[in-house]
Amino acid sequence: MPNVLTTDSLFATHLREGEFAGVRIDHADPARASGPKPDLRLTKRALGPVAVFGASNFPLAFSVAGGDTASALAAGCPVVVKGHPAHPGTGELVAGALSAAVAASELPAGTFSFLQDGGIGVGQALVSDARIKAVGFTGSRGAGEALVRLAAARSEPIPVYAEMSATNPVVLLPARLAEAAEQIGTAFVGSLTLGTGQFCTNPGLVFAIEGDGLERFLAAAADAVATWAPGVMLTPGICSAFAASSSQVSNHSGVSLLAESGTADLRASAKLLATDAATFLANPDLHHEMFGPAALVVRCSDLDQLADVLAAVEGQLTVAIHFNDADHIAARRLLPIAMDRAGRVLANGFGTGVEVSPAMVHGGPYPSTSDCRTTSVGTMAIERFLRPVCLQDFPEDLLPETVRESNPWGMPRRVWS
Amino acid sequence: MPNVLTTDSLFATHLREGEFAGVRIDHADPARASGPKPDLRLTKRALGPVAVFGASNFPLAFSVAGGDTASALAAGCPVVVKGHPAHPGTGELVAGALSAAVAASELPAGTFSFLQDGGIGVGQALVSDARIKAVGFTGSRGAGEALVRLAAARSEPIPVYAEMSATNPVVLLPARLAEAAEQIGTAFVGSLTLGTGQFCTNPGLVFAIEGDGLERFLAAAADAVATWAPGVMLTPGICSAFAASSSQVSNHSGVSLLAESGTADLRASAKLLATDAATFLANPDLHHEMFGPAALVVRCSDLDQLADVLAAVEGQLTVAIHFNDADHIAARRLLPIAMDRAGRVLANGFGTGVEVSPAMVHGGPYPSTSDCRTTSVGTMAIERFLRPVCLQDFPEDLLPETVRESNPWGMPRRVWS
Repeated sequence: MPNVLTTDSLFATHLREGEFAGVRIDHADPARASGPKPDLRLTKRALGPVAVFGASNFPLAFSVAGGDTASALAAGCPVVVKGHPAHPGTGELVAGALSAAVAASELPAGTFSFLQDGGIGVGQALVSDARIKAVGFTGSRGAGEALVRLAAARSEPIPVYAEMSATNPVVLLPARLAEAAEQIGTAFVGSLTLGTGQFCTNPGLVFAIEGDGLERFLAAAADAVATWAPGVMLTPGICSAFAASSSQVSNHSGVSLLAESGTADLRASAKLLATDAATFLANPDLHHEMFGPAALVVRCSDLDQLADVLAAVEGQLTVAIHFNDADHIAARRLLPIAMDRAGRVLANGFGTGVEVSPAMVHGGPYPSTSDCRTTSVGTMAIERFLRPVCLQDFPEDLLPETVRESNPWGMPRRVWS
Repeated sequence: MPNVLTTDSLFATHLREGEFAGVRIDHADPARASGPKPDLRLTKRALGPVAVFGASNFPLAFSVAGGDTASALAAGCPVVVKGHPAHPGTGELVAGALSAAVAASELPAGTFSFLQDGGIGVGQALVSDARIKAVGFTGSRGAGEALVRLAAARSEPIPVYAEMSATNPVVLLPARLAEAAEQIGTAFVGSLTLGTGQFCTNPGLVFAIEGDGLERFLAAAADAVATWAPGVMLTPGICSAFAASSSQVSNHSGVSLLAESGTADLRASAKLLATDAATFLANPDLHHEMFGPAALVVRCSDLDQLADVLAAVEGQLTVAIHFNDADHIAARRLLPIAMDRAGRVLANGFGTGVEVSPAMVHGGPYPSTSDCRTTSVGTMAIERFLRPVCLQDFPEDLLPETVRESNPWGMPRRVWS
């Protein structure tokens, strides 16, 4: 078993349990009537060296020693990290700790490498390098799509796991609003402004049916936005990009500005914006992420229109549905639409918290990620860096330990016949 | 559960067992010291409508109602098949049976559709259509790569599972050759000419160390090739393409023709060709598939050179290693190289037989397939058409049946805390 992770973390436990290898054993039957059946043993194997791009918004959890690096190393893949220029010092410190751990574990020095670049040349060279077999990326849609296209243009295309862009719709159903509009409005702005709105799971869209409950929600949310103390953003570039994208929506025909916070140098002005469903449905440019603390509320005339609006959004990391017992029929109707649009669907909460769990899915349909078949958070993330290999008719002593009949590593496995 | 498969096949059993849904349940802990922990439930969901391209060489097992169609339907994906123009009548008959089964099962009519086209327009339109969410393809490298690039150029790129090109190297180690060279030579030509060499797992490369054993193998193989009764190929196009590609290798500087069979109109002339390792390593054009009954034997001076030759080949569906007890050290050295190059590694056999098994991997690194993270044969094939979805904090009666606490479908599941 890989010994790079020696702490008693969730990941280390998962590795020791061995389920990630997906071992399947189908025994031989030389006397089968239709012809001899071979002995087949399936295990998983590392894809090869992985390029990981550090994220601007998570200098620790999703950068040099973040989720992709941990998953790739755990899978047995050497990792080359391209550090994010927003935090070069932090990157260097973390990379030094990782390199020291590699040396202390007596792993080959090439197990981990760290490169810095303020531009895009090093990243492009990494993704184009024939020795790199997969890419992990967290960042903007433009940069992510550029890497996806670069990887697809190689003579050997490789998987790119790019987490790019999401508006994480929040659906508010009427009966729940009637009983708790103010409480939800305040909690919503808490989620919207968490980390100055720079979480990938930030709730940038709200869908609700017109009525008294929605007005009460909006009043409470507007109060919370107006009194929010403007937060410093990660970089000057992110700050100016947020000002531009939120102003563009704010100035859009059919959109009204309900509330905004103060602002200051390098600080974001939170914005609460509203429009009607017809305007939203007719203008896909209103569906895009504003990376920062701004949300667009879409007023729907009825449940049919709300369902249409939810079905019209692009792929998402999360969709949240707020409901109570009296909303169950509506919630039941919207849930399949939400599952089609997102990797995670929440009841009566906000997606900004991402639990590190075996059951977490942090991923979703395009463009929230470039590959919806996987997760970047939770123990299942190791699977994105593995591929299956079948061993046929090998004697016990030549088989990889994971699939030996004697099972020296105690791997969980399914055995047929 | 999907009810489209009602036979007691391996696939139906696998579906009923439910492991494909990969259910994971991590219970809530509202009182956790570090903050409330949500209830998280992971299940799998269909990717959406799938385009399947019928294969020329398997009108039944890998065409209209072949592996990809069965896997996609089982996953819950509607399927649109583009029939192969090599067998339009067979395609129409099979499509009619599938449509009748869809109607008899009272599934929506759109569950299965069938399109024919002698050209590439319909296929291109299918892969470009925004409603299609994945592609299954079995065919030539040129056509497969064109579809991969078309899918990558969409505004929403989608997965393409293209099985394209493999030479399936056979490694013959000295001690095993010494004891059974003639027997292996005859069996090898049996595999090489099976289906007139038109299996995707056809053994087109042989790697061995020079010596008496290899010469005995070559003599037996040459005899078998020379006396082979030429077989009819699938289409005139495949027949002329094979004649061209096998002649190109035969006429290559440094390659000698050891034996060839007779031929006739639409029939293949089997060829046994040989070269030395230096020529092979210096000429990547000798590494490519000749789709038909032709093999190139590469004479290596020693085990080091044999290892270099094996490491130099492109990604493969299979690598076979022939050895006996006295070859164990050499086999142990070559096995990791073989596992890096192929999705399936066989001992003392040939890959042309592909067992339909839960433990089968029919897939491999590029260009044998466009996505080495999956298999097209065996029950694990269903996974290529699924994506994970996490449900957070939903009440029992709104949860999908697969992840309900009461487990009404008896799904196998892992439960934490």
